[in-house]
Amino acid sequence: MSVPIFGHVGTARPGDLFESRLELSLHRQHRPRQAGICATQKEGAESIVLSDKYEDDEVHEDYILYTGHGGRDPESGKQVTDQTLTDANLGLARSEATGRPVRVYRKVRTSSNGAAFRYEGLFRVTSHQFTTGKSGFGVFRFRLEPVVVMPSEPLPYGLPDLLDDASSTAQEAAPRYEATTSRLIRDTAVTRQVKTMYKYRCQMCDTQLQSPSGLYAEAAHIKPLGAPHHGPDVLANVLCLCPNHHVLFDLGSFAIGQDLALIGLPGRLHYKPLHQLGAEFLAYQRQHIHLRTASKAVASSNDE
Amino acid sequence: MSVPIFGHVGTARPGDLFESRLELSLHRQHRPRQAGICATQKEGAESIVLSDKYEDDEVHEDYILYTGHGGRDPESGKQVTDQTLTDANLGLARSEATGRPVRVYRKVRTSSNGAAFRYEGLFRVTSHQFTTGKSGFGVFRFRLEPVVVMPSEPLPYGLPDLLDDASSTAQEAAPRYEATTSRLIRDTAVTRQVKTMYKYRCQMCDTQLQSPSGLYAEAAHIKPLGAPHHGPDVLANVLCLCPNHHVLFDLGSFAIGQDLALIGLPGRLHYKPLHQLGAEFLAYQRQHIHLRTASKAVASSNDE
Repeated sequence: MSVPIFGHVGTARPGDLFESRLELSLHRQHRPRQAGICATQKEGAESIVLSDKYEDDEVHEDYILYTGHGGRDPESGKQVTDQTLTDANLGLARSEATGRPVRVYRKVRTSSNGAAFRYEGLFRVTSHQFTTGKSGFGVFRFRLEPVVVMPSEPLPYGLPDLLDDASSTAQEAAPRYEATTSRLIRDTAVTRQVKTMYKYRCQMCDTQLQSPSGLYAEAAHIKPLGAPHHGPDVLANVLCLCPNHHVLFDLGSFAIGQDLALIGLPGRLHYKPLHQLGAEFLAYQRQHIHLRTASKAVASSNDE
Repeated sequence: MSVPIFGHVGTARPGDLFESRLELSLHRQHRPRQAGICATQKEGAESIVLSDKYEDDEVHEDYILYTGHGGRDPESGKQVTDQTLTDANLGLARSEATGRPVRVYRKVRTSSNGAAFRYEGLFRVTSHQFTTGKSGFGVFRFRLEPVVVMPSEPLPYGLPDLLDDASSTAQEAAPRYEATTSRLIRDTAVTRQVKTMYKYRCQMCDTQLQSPSGLYAEAAHIKPLGAPHHGPDVLANVLCLCPNHHVLFDLGSFAIGQDLALIGLPGRLHYKPLHQLGAEFLAYQRQHIHLRTASKAVASSNDE
C-alpha cells in the first residue's frame, strides 16, 4: 500500500499529455486504472479523471463541477440509483474539509482523432451539492477551483515521479507538500447588516468573540453564492455565525429545520423577528448541502 | 460627516498619479489632508498614504510593512515615545479583523523632480506586529498585501468620484462594495502532525469539531510564518486550535504565559508532554502579536 501523494507528481505540469490511463497510473499521476477518483476517506482525494462518462460533469473556465462516484449500471453506464456519501464521495468531501490540492486529469481528443489525458493542474474542492442529476437520480457534485499560487507562496509539490528516478524510495516516504487553503469570508453590505443585527453573536451558540479592535463574527450564506448554487446576497439568505459554526455549516455538518430546530446538532437557531429568513434557502441547504450518513443520504431526496 | 468608502473611488485605478495631498483629498481618494491613515475604530481604515516620514516603513514587491501612527515629535518628526493601540492604529487592527480593502497611495518622485502620489491599489491588512523601531521606541507595523481579484470574483468597488459627477448624492449613500476576505489555513506535514497529536481537539477549549467527512481543526503558527515575523514551520511553533480560537489568537486577543496560563482569556493551554513547545515562540507572540489595551501596550516593551 503506497502513501497518497498530494500536489504535482514529478515534473508533470498543467498542459502535459499522457497517452492512456495505464500511462497515468505508471507515472503515479492517477494510480487507479479504472476508477475516476483516487481517494481515501481519511486523507481525501489525491487525483481525479474527468472522462465523458458522467453526464452531470461541467467544465467551465474557472471551475469544474465534478460528479461523485457510484449509482451507475456497469453495463450501460447509466445512472440507475442515487449516489451515497461513501468511499470516494466521502473522500472528496474530506478534501473540502482539509483544503488539500487535488490533481485533475481530463480526457481530450488529440489531432490524430485519438484520445489522451491532459493534466489540468491542482484544484481544491470548494463546495458540494447533493442534487438530482439528468437521470433523475441523486448525485453528488463537487465544485473544484484551480489553486492560485501566489508569488510569495511556495509551490505545492508532491513526490518525484518514480519512473524518472528508479532509485527513489518515494514509495516509503511521508507525503511531502505544502499548501495554503483559504476560507472565503465575504464582506458585503448584507453581511455587515446581519452581524450588526445580532451584535456579532453566533445564531447557533450565542458566542460573541471579542478581538482587541472590536467584535468578530462571520456571515454565512445559507444557499451558497456562486455556481452551482447561485444563492442571493440578501438578508433572508445569511446567518451571523462564529467561525466554528460557519465551518461546520458549510461542510454540511448540520442543517436548520422548518421549526428552526437544528438537525445534526442539539439546539435551535437564535433568531430575531426582524430577520426575515427565507424558508426556501433553509430547505435548499437541508436538501443539497447538509451531508447525512450514507443511509440517510439515500433518503434525502424524499426530504420535503 | 461623510460615510467611509471602501474599495476604488471613481475611475481611479492602480498606477494613477495625483499631484498633491490636496488633490487626493478633493477626489475623496484619501480624505485627510495631513494624516497618513484615514480610519475609524468602528469601520477600520479606508486609505493610507506612504510618505517618507516613517523610517520603519518597508515596501516590497508583494507586501508592504506600514508603520502605525503616533509617538513622533511634531517638530523634528522623530520617534520619541512608544506608539499606542489607539485611534488610527486601532483602525488598522480593525481592518485586519474585517478584511476590508484599504486604498494605498505612495509618494513618488516625478521625472521633473517634483513629488506626486501614486495610487497603488487595494490592499488587505494580513498581520500586525508591535516591535522596537529604528528609534528604539515601540511601533506598530502592519503587513499589507495586494488584493488579488479572481476571475470569478466581482471587482471590489467604492463610490463614484464626487468631482466626476457633481450631481451625485454619494455623500449620503451607504458604502457599497463587495469584497472577499480569505483566511489562510496552512496545510503542511507539521500542521497535520499537531492535529493528529491532539485528535483535532482545540488546545484552548477542548472543542472537537465533527464534520461529515471527519474531524476538523486548524493549526496555528505561534510566531507567524512570513515577513516580518519569519516563524518556522516546526512542531514547537504550532498549536491545534478550533477556528474560533485561531481567529482570536491571530488577531492578538490573547497570549500564553510561560506557565501556560492564558493571558487575556480565562483558562490554560491544553498540552501534551510530547509536544515540545518553543518558549521563544510563545514569548514572541506575547510581545509582538498580543494586542493589549492602550495603557498596557505602552508597558509591553517591558514584558520579559
